[in-house]
Amino acid sequence: MNGKKPGKNFPKKGNFGKGKSFKSSSSKDWVRTPVSYAKKKIGEIGFATEGNYEVRGRVNRIAVTAGPTIFVISDGTGSLQLKGFIGPGARAYPEIEEGDCINADVKMGEFNGEIEGEIVKIRKLQNSERREFLEFVKQTEIERAKVTPPKFLIEDRILSKLKDRFTEAATQIRLAVIQDRPIIVRHHNDADGYSSGFALERAILPLIEKQHASEKAAWEFFMRAPCAAPFYEIDDSIRDTAISLRNVAKFSNKMPLIIIADNGSSPEDLMAIKQGKVHGADFIVIDHHFFDHDVISEQVLVHVNPFLVGEDGARFSAGMLCTEIARFINPEVHNISQIPAMAGFADRIDLGNPEAMDKYLKISEKEGYSKSLLADISLVIDYISSKVRFMEVREYIEVLFGEPRDKQKKLVSLLAPFIRELDEKGLRMGKANAIVEKIGKTNLQSLHFEEFFPGFGFFPKPGRITGLVHDTLQSEKDITSLVTVGIMATSITIRATDESNFSVHELIKFLNRKIPEAFVEGGGHKNAGSITFLPNKQAEIVELLKEFIRGRN
Amino acid sequence: MNGKKPGKNFPKKGNFGKGKSFKSSSSKDWVRTPVSYAKKKIGEIGFATEGNYEVRGRVNRIAVTAGPTIFVISDGTGSLQLKGFIGPGARAYPEIEEGDCINADVKMGEFNGEIEGEIVKIRKLQNSERREFLEFVKQTEIERAKVTPPKFLIEDRILSKLKDRFTEAATQIRLAVIQDRPIIVRHHNDADGYSSGFALERAILPLIEKQHASEKAAWEFFMRAPCAAPFYEIDDSIRDTAISLRNVAKFSNKMPLIIIADNGSSPEDLMAIKQGKVHGADFIVIDHHFFDHDVISEQVLVHVNPFLVGEDGARFSAGMLCTEIARFINPEVHNISQIPAMAGFADRIDLGNPEAMDKYLKISEKEGYSKSLLADISLVIDYISSKVRFMEVREYIEVLFGEPRDKQKKLVSLLAPFIRELDEKGLRMGKANAIVEKIGKTNLQSLHFEEFFPGFGFFPKPGRITGLVHDTLQSEKDITSLVTVGIMATSITIRATDESNFSVHELIKFLNRKIPEAFVEGGGHKNAGSITFLPNKQAEIVELLKEFIRGRN
Amino acid sequence: MNGKKPGKNFPKKGNFGKGKSFKSSSSKDWVRTPVSYAKKKIGEIGFATEGNYEVRGRVNRIAVTAGPTIFVISDGTGSLQLKGFIGPGARAYPEIEEGDCINADVKMGEFNGEIEGEIVKIRKLQNSERREFLEFVKQTEIERAKVTPPKFLIEDRILSKLKDRFTEAATQIRLAVIQDRPIIVRHHNDADGYSSGFALERAILPLIEKQHASEKAAWEFFMRAPCAAPFYEIDDSIRDTAISLRNVAKFSNKMPLIIIADNGSSPEDLMAIKQGKVHGADFIVIDHHFFDHDVISEQVLVHVNPFLVGEDGARFSAGMLCTEIARFINPEVHNISQIPAMAGFADRIDLGNPEAMDKYLKISEKEGYSKSLLADISLVIDYISSKVRFMEVREYIEVLFGEPRDKQKKLVSLLAPFIRELDEKGLRMGKANAIVEKIGKTNLQSLHFEEFFPGFGFFPKPGRITGLVHDTLQSEKDITSLVTVGIMATSITIRATDESNFSVHELIKFLNRKIPEAFVEGGGHKNAGSITFLPNKQAEIVELLKEFIRGRN
Repeated sequence: MNGKKPGKNFPKKGNFGKGKSFKSSSSKDWVRTPVSYAKKKIGEIGFATEGNYEVRGRVNRIAVTAGPTIFVISDGTGSLQLKGFIGPGARAYPEIEEGDCINADVKMGEFNGEIEGEIVKIRKLQNSERREFLEFVKQTEIERAKVTPPKFLIEDRILSKLKDRFTEAATQIRLAVIQDRPIIVRHHNDADGYSSGFALERAILPLIEKQHASEKAAWEFFMRAPCAAPFYEIDDSIRDTAISLRNVAKFSNKMPLIIIADNGSSPEDLMAIKQGKVHGADFIVIDHHFFDHDVISEQVLVHVNPFLVGEDGARFSAGMLCTEIARFINPEVHNISQIPAMAGFADRIDLGNPEAMDKYLKISEKEGYSKSLLADISLVIDYISSKVRFMEVREYIEVLFGEPRDKQKKLVSLLAPFIRELDEKGLRMGKANAIVEKIGKTNLQSLHFEEFFPGFGFFPKPGRITGLVHDTLQSEKDITSLVTVGIMATSITIRATDESNFSVHELIKFLNRKIPEAFVEGGGHKNAGSITFLPNKQAEIVELLKEFIRGRN
Repeated sequence: MNGKKPGKNFPKKGNFGKGKSFKSSSSKDWVRTPVSYAKKKIGEIGFATEGNYEVRGRVNRIAVTAGPTIFVISDGTGSLQLKGFIGPGARAYPEIEEGDCINADVKMGEFNGEIEGEIVKIRKLQNSERREFLEFVKQTEIERAKVTPPKFLIEDRILSKLKDRFTEAATQIRLAVIQDRPIIVRHHNDADGYSSGFALERAILPLIEKQHASEKAAWEFFMRAPCAAPFYEIDDSIRDTAISLRNVAKFSNKMPLIIIADNGSSPEDLMAIKQGKVHGADFIVIDHHFFDHDVISEQVLVHVNPFLVGEDGARFSAGMLCTEIARFINPEVHNISQIPAMAGFADRIDLGNPEAMDKYLKISEKEGYSKSLLADISLVIDYISSKVRFMEVREYIEVLFGEPRDKQKKLVSLLAPFIRELDEKGLRMGKANAIVEKIGKTNLQSLHFEEFFPGFGFFPKPGRITGLVHDTLQSEKDITSLVTVGIMATSITIRATDESNFSVHELIKFLNRKIPEAFVEGGGHKNAGSITFLPNKQAEIVELLKEFIRGRN
Repeated sequence: MNGKKPGKNFPKKGNFGKGKSFKSSSSKDWVRTPVSYAKKKIGEIGFATEGNYEVRGRVNRIAVTAGPTIFVISDGTGSLQLKGFIGPGARAYPEIEEGDCINADVKMGEFNGEIEGEIVKIRKLQNSERREFLEFVKQTEIERAKVTPPKFLIEDRILSKLKDRFTEAATQIRLAVIQDRPIIVRHHNDADGYSSGFALERAILPLIEKQHASEKAAWEFFMRAPCAAPFYEIDDSIRDTAISLRNVAKFSNKMPLIIIADNGSSPEDLMAIKQGKVHGADFIVIDHHFFDHDVISEQVLVHVNPFLVGEDGARFSAGMLCTEIARFINPEVHNISQIPAMAGFADRIDLGNPEAMDKYLKISEKEGYSKSLLADISLVIDYISSKVRFMEVREYIEVLFGEPRDKQKKLVSLLAPFIRELDEKGLRMGKANAIVEKIGKTNLQSLHFEEFFPGFGFFPKPGRITGLVHDTLQSEKDITSLVTVGIMATSITIRATDESNFSVHELIKFLNRKIPEAFVEGGGHKNAGSITFLPNKQAEIVELLKEFIRGRN
């Protein structure tokens, strides 16, 4: 089992954290029973203690069993099961409902190996008493959620500028764990996206396990899964919402905190986020993709993106950002310091920010990860992600990221050469069917995938073949001004060199001006992206693409 | 939690219903122990009672635990766990098997919060004793299942004519619940279908929860899911059967009662129903679609369809029917009275039966649902159903139907304008690619989707675009005799106005006469439906379609 | 419940088997407590015994509960739960970890119906003591796993030659069960493949249920599922691995033994097998398909294939092999003796080995299965497998194989005529669109599916239509030298008569020589198989196919 050491402020044992004492202001008006019930916060009761206590709590869940009625309460310092019995199967204290806050005198003891409190007396908190208590809970939770920012792994201007956002994101994530709120991490379906998701997972899971004093909680209160599309689609949002609503109904869970990583900053993510919020989910976005206008910040708890602080997403990938944030979330997180180098190379950050990549690579190498090993791992992640698609396969991904290291090594040694052969074959197919023409100073390389792609399930996919062919032509023919396009029935995928002066975003604007009836949409980075259009407009789109390139010469 | 009030005849607490006493005729030959075992029906024992009883029951399930052997018995008034112990892990009373009927002297008590009876003496019922007991069970169950028909929400000839079928359907559904039989509701994948499924769900779920004294039972003994096709395919049937067989094997469940709603009346449903029956499932069909010959009635417990009583399905939608039946099933069902108006407008019943729709709309408005709100909800259901496809997403659907109302409002306010934009875009694509030609008095509007449809996953789908384009041309150009066809590689989807004198069913007959080698199939309503054919016959089919339209002028 | 009688050497009750006594050599240096702890193997303790014992065991699992800490240990003769308590929720004996071997003095007793041992004293075995104990475990397990080869159902040279491999395969399978190792059976997605999987399942499941003393174990420790492709793809392997890794993490399961049946012998299976082995899975292959070079044997525990002993796979199908092996695994297996005849006819073994088929058919007929009933069942399996695809649907498959017989009969009577109608329609479509031409002495019949196939989801699929059209032309026109090809965008499916002197494997070599840029791949049997290629090479491939046929004249 990995990463078991919790962050500070998390209970040593189970959910019985050491919170601070009730403030005298909020406890002055408690009803004091004549004798023996000692006023305690739940976190102070601890495991081994038997005795009589007076506790307060918010009722999170009520379960009517065939025996007693169980009330699960929490006060921000921990949670506790109380049982009330008025006859088998009968609902005890029907005046107490989920969401109420209560004060109770209880006899603590162990019953069948669980710590439970038998209710001697219970009453609902009302008005100011309730408000004071909830304020106490809130303050206690915020106190426990607080983050002490660590030193960054490397020094970089972008990190400094984003530091406050990191703190806020980490605090919100810790707060969700403390409030027993499930966390869903949704990430881009590539090596940088997986790196982002994994770094966050490594930080969050140990906190969840400690909070719930249960290894199973790791599956009940956490899910990490890739998005199918290059943004958080409304389909993802509906699915996440529907599953969460079911867990609310069946298990009295809360609605989740959803973290979107390496996706989430663009207008295409907006409806999905709003949809989730209607149902009570909250969102944090950690991305480095470009957006025209920021429509996301006002919808989410925290929005992290270099573009928000006047920096370029090509200089820091999401996996790099998430690794640094992971260290804010859980200072004891481990086995992630090699991730920024891997994620960065996968997203070509060595082109945009070679200094940062050098520093991260040094850290990686200290952990035994050479640049070529990182490239191999990243290759295997790309391949595996194309196979597992939307499935989480958490434990398999753990192996890919080096838990344990010896299995990672064996797996990567087996698969990397195999995948390189597949890529080699895909490259040969692509090269055999590529047409290169000169448009002004720029070379346009076209791949008509309808003519030669073997079909669904084939690896490498068109986008990957386009990238391979694009890179190869540059290196083999020493061509520096190059645009490579993979043309399909209703879409084109694009790669361009800096020298070609291309822009996916400008192309989309150009096409929508010239041929609105093609209903062009798309996105991506400046030099790499894709567009979609109506099938009967394909030929015109290709012609206009040439016109566009000519105009950028 | 919604709809918790049960119908009458369901136990107040758990499965310990108050049944009537044993008839003296059936109890006269019981073995009476000298002293203390009081003869009781299970429903009379109740929760709080400890003591010594003589009970009879059918053995539904035997579980050998590492400790005692558990026998779950029922007698039509309730069910009870008996435990026999002859040594840890040893199978007690191996002569008693599942399906046997028994008489037992038991000591009742609470053990670990569950009511159990410790077996003092047990014997199998044989021959006439067994027959009498089973007859008693049957009568008791039938008695409890009985329905008192309520006043309909509105007066309508169709309802009066179908009343006896409603009573019979509701009785069978209640009986299934009483017999611990799982219920599967399979409905058409559109707004009327979802309305049908939801109305039934709201009536049935509270009965199930009471029967099993368990909230989890709502998931273990009930499933509602859309069909993928516009009928109950053999694929659906195999899947339902396979899952049910697994539940029989793993959990000693019974084979289910399957209710097909807004589908099920046509010959296309026949094999699927027969397939399910082989495995022990039973069926109820509640539909309003047209069929040539009724091949379904003889295969199902109850068949409800306006066409069966000489009426037209265009005058009453399935959602309208199911809402009225829901009130037969559970007189305390609530939050469904707005459904008939919504379902009816979604299926254009305002054209066929404006009087009924006016009445239902008034009821809806009293609940705060205006016509435009209902249209918005219906729009959102169509959209969401295209996203969730075959998944149940029960709790999400609850929100769409107003549980709770405030979330429904927020969700519909968010999504309806968004979906209308998508529709607007789909409509523009369609209009830009539509070709209208005059064939005699009729206008034929053709949409060649292969040329312009953006592909899988796009909303609106071809069928919906065809409908939108069809409606728009009528209203914008004031065309009243119009047939609109959406042409795809191996299918055509069709919408027609009354004035065009079209008929999907006649077209299919015509094509099969003219070009049998195209293997045309299809179905739907008179003015809206679809056909399939072999791809290399597409051009000929389109020509013959024109010939058919000319012939109907 | 079926097939409950276990093989010999499996415990009568639960996992408390009767193993042999500790060998004196290995027990001589045990620490003996002064008084009352009697040295026992776990298998000797048995259910009903209370008392004080000294046991040894390997720690398979440690669970920290809110009460005591639970240690699950086993010694090859059975497994046992020990509990240590040092305070509620506290981890008892933290020096003991999973994988350790221990010696413990325990007080046995029943707690809440489970046999548990309360730890009085516990210590870790070290060095030679540990080695001796593990050797004892290994020997005990091997002893229990030993197989006494039964008489084969029929006499055949192939069986005699493969007998040692059968023994080895059965021993390894029994060993996996004894070691609580999950078993996954992955089989070809056709009637022979299902027959293979089912025969193995019938033998293995009862052993698993006995080993774990639990009916649920049948689902937790066993899975049978078809492969999607005609080999064990890396996709299958990744999925199996990912699920197994999750079960290891969540339930402390072991990594599985994976049996590949009616697939697995070809180089296409190699990467998938290696991938699984990296993660700790082991493999057994039972196949009868042809391979050029055996690259599999060195990767798997046991490889069974007639070609490995100089025989032809056309003379014995996988279902025939697996049925014989099933009888090695579990001498009390039943309801499988009809399977070889069914599997054999499905794979046309009556052409290659009519003597064996006669003998198997006689055995079948004794069980009430006529040749035509077997053909019907096989037809239904083909159809159902096309519907359920990758799902296991274990209980549904049981019905198809005659558990119970009356439901099998009803199901087959219902579906077989229905499927024959579908086949008849598919055949008519195929015939109407078939083109026959003479190439030298050979007739080439071509079906251009792109022109006439109704599309995804249609049954029969192209491969099946090709087979039907191929068979029909032979019988109707008395043509004996015939090649039938079903041509699709990127693939061709092929059927050939013996007289045509065709060879799928030679064709693939020929095409790769003539047109390497088409990237032809494929496989199958000599007279039945399929190839894939790039879409823009289709016309050239068809021309080269004709050239190839001409050259074989």
